[in-house]
Amino acid sequence: MSVKPILSALAGEPVWPPPVWLMRQAGRYLPEYRAIREKAGDFITLCTSPEWAAEVTLQPVRRFGVDAAILFSDILMLPWALGQGLRFAEGEGPRLPPLRDAAALAALDPGRLDGAIAPILETVAKVRAALDDRTALIGFAGAPFTVACYMVEGRGSSDFAATKAMAYGDPALFAALIDLLTESTIAYLSAQILAGAEVVMLFDSWAGMLAPDLFRAHVIAPAARIAQALRTRHPTVRRIGFPRLAGMMLGEYAAATGMDGLGMDSATDPRAARAAVGPDIALQGNLDPLALVAGGAAQRDGVAAILAAARGHPTIFNLGHGIVPHTPPSHVATLMEQVRAG
Amino acid sequence: MSVKPILSALAGEPVWPPPVWLMRQAGRYLPEYRAIREKAGDFITLCTSPEWAAEVTLQPVRRFGVDAAILFSDILMLPWALGQGLRFAEGEGPRLPPLRDAAALAALDPGRLDGAIAPILETVAKVRAALDDRTALIGFAGAPFTVACYMVEGRGSSDFAATKAMAYGDPALFAALIDLLTESTIAYLSAQILAGAEVVMLFDSWAGMLAPDLFRAHVIAPAARIAQALRTRHPTVRRIGFPRLAGMMLGEYAAATGMDGLGMDSATDPRAARAAVGPDIALQGNLDPLALVAGGAAQRDGVAAILAAARGHPTIFNLGHGIVPHTPPSHVATLMEQVRAG
Repeated sequence: MSVKPILSALAGEPVWPPPVWLMRQAGRYLPEYRAIREKAGDFITLCTSPEWAAEVTLQPVRRFGVDAAILFSDILMLPWALGQGLRFAEGEGPRLPPLRDAAALAALDPGRLDGAIAPILETVAKVRAALDDRTALIGFAGAPFTVACYMVEGRGSSDFAATKAMAYGDPALFAALIDLLTESTIAYLSAQILAGAEVVMLFDSWAGMLAPDLFRAHVIAPAARIAQALRTRHPTVRRIGFPRLAGMMLGEYAAATGMDGLGMDSATDPRAARAAVGPDIALQGNLDPLALVAGGAAQRDGVAAILAAARGHPTIFNLGHGIVPHTPPSHVATLMEQVRAG
Repeated sequence: MSVKPILSALAGEPVWPPPVWLMRQAGRYLPEYRAIREKAGDFITLCTSPEWAAEVTLQPVRRFGVDAAILFSDILMLPWALGQGLRFAEGEGPRLPPLRDAAALAALDPGRLDGAIAPILETVAKVRAALDDRTALIGFAGAPFTVACYMVEGRGSSDFAATKAMAYGDPALFAALIDLLTESTIAYLSAQILAGAEVVMLFDSWAGMLAPDLFRAHVIAPAARIAQALRTRHPTVRRIGFPRLAGMMLGEYAAATGMDGLGMDSATDPRAARAAVGPDIALQGNLDPLALVAGGAAQRDGVAAILAAARGHPTIFNLGHGIVPHTPPSHVATLMEQVRAG
């Protein structure tokens, strides 16, 4: 039985050409996604309707032949499952009732988790059953710090003032929130693995906003706990960490968490990242999503630079951040050819 | 004659306790600033009224005894001086007519620069005349890339989609804009030095958003040109570069630009930064402004960690980003005591 290319890369093999998938490969830039999205109406309805969620998960696999499907969901489905209200206001992003005190933390109910995530796990099983023997299924969760940012702020933010006010001003409360999210994330990802996910990825979009001591406490330590718990429970699972904008902390994150793969944001020089993390870990990334929008020479040169740095090392080609809505699908098709030509 | 402590640190001396000033030390968190701001009405009026601008520049020097005054101005006064319309909408940040094509670039007029910046230079001269013999005067400008971001977007942004669309899609046009800004910045900072600035700082707030090749072309290369031109014209001037969120590119920036000092954002580990840039350059930073808001243990521990890493190396204590408006002035007074206690 042949091993799926992404799993080989995550086992440390320099598979060439590198396997490729793209963050937010299922999404608004695809007309077939927009058609399903319109039928579903509400975004949360889409995420919790296994037929629809499985269909949009599979759309980019069919259209582009990417090497992995990634569960269509949202990092905020975990707080939603824990009972924090969540809605997606059209064109405005997520909104939650801000969690600012111990009472709001106590109101979260881990007992709700299993029931709430059941439809998501059904999506995972459906997608896994539909995939061929070379395409891997990636499950995911938001990392505790990034999820906590949204839970505390109640929305996106540019400076995370309320989150940092809690982290600095009431460190015990913030640590309790991170702890609850760490345990819930272990349960959530473990359930995804049992349902069929072969790889899990932990997205820490706002990791780069933290001072070093807080980064160690709220990014590295939870990721290490999650990665190690999953390895213990599921010895063959592959784990990818993505501490976005970690900068000079990337090497410390890699060493302390023991992840099999590491996502690189677009600002990261792949050669510097490789020097920081050593030869064995798979590096995943990191074309600028805006270079994919531009296409042409910018895209071609960007892909070539990443491939040149990657050759001979375990690598998964990806973007450095999610596909943006105004990306022409034809550019993605060209990207696949460019990567597959090695 | 004693040398001002900041100038000694920027000459590579491990002055102890380290000299200290704070980004946005003149600003809305101070009641005496708000009083002047109200009199001036419009923000641009405040920046171009030498009496008022000098007064707010000097307020934190008087109140806290910081080791440097930094010219009260805004990085967007350069595009304003070149003729791009600029206004500050209350509570909304800056607004400019977006620069999106060659015609808009051609409409900028470097011939306006000298006349437009005259009141700003008058402020510089007034402040310098008012400072004692231990307090240095810092002039500044936005770095070409960050200024270009605002000029192209027409406002702040989270993804800089229009800026990157130009950088990737019309690289010659974007390079011409960066080139114009580089030359104008040399002229602007040189004029500030002739008017009395002893140090100049180049703020590249959005440097960390660029992929490595664009970072080299639009952050490092312009900063190197600016730093070298200023050194040639003004051999005793001290230059500080601040490529915010540069992450693993910090060492390359330091080596290629030859800056005397380097700003560190709050996410940077000072020990890693020191290892990346070598022993001679002054490192400036990097307490999280939100730790200063929180005060108490968060502030005390944050200061202690930065001082512990800094001891024995040329250092200027600062924040990692600007003071935020809801900072209690009493926390700043405490900070001064903590830093001065070494």
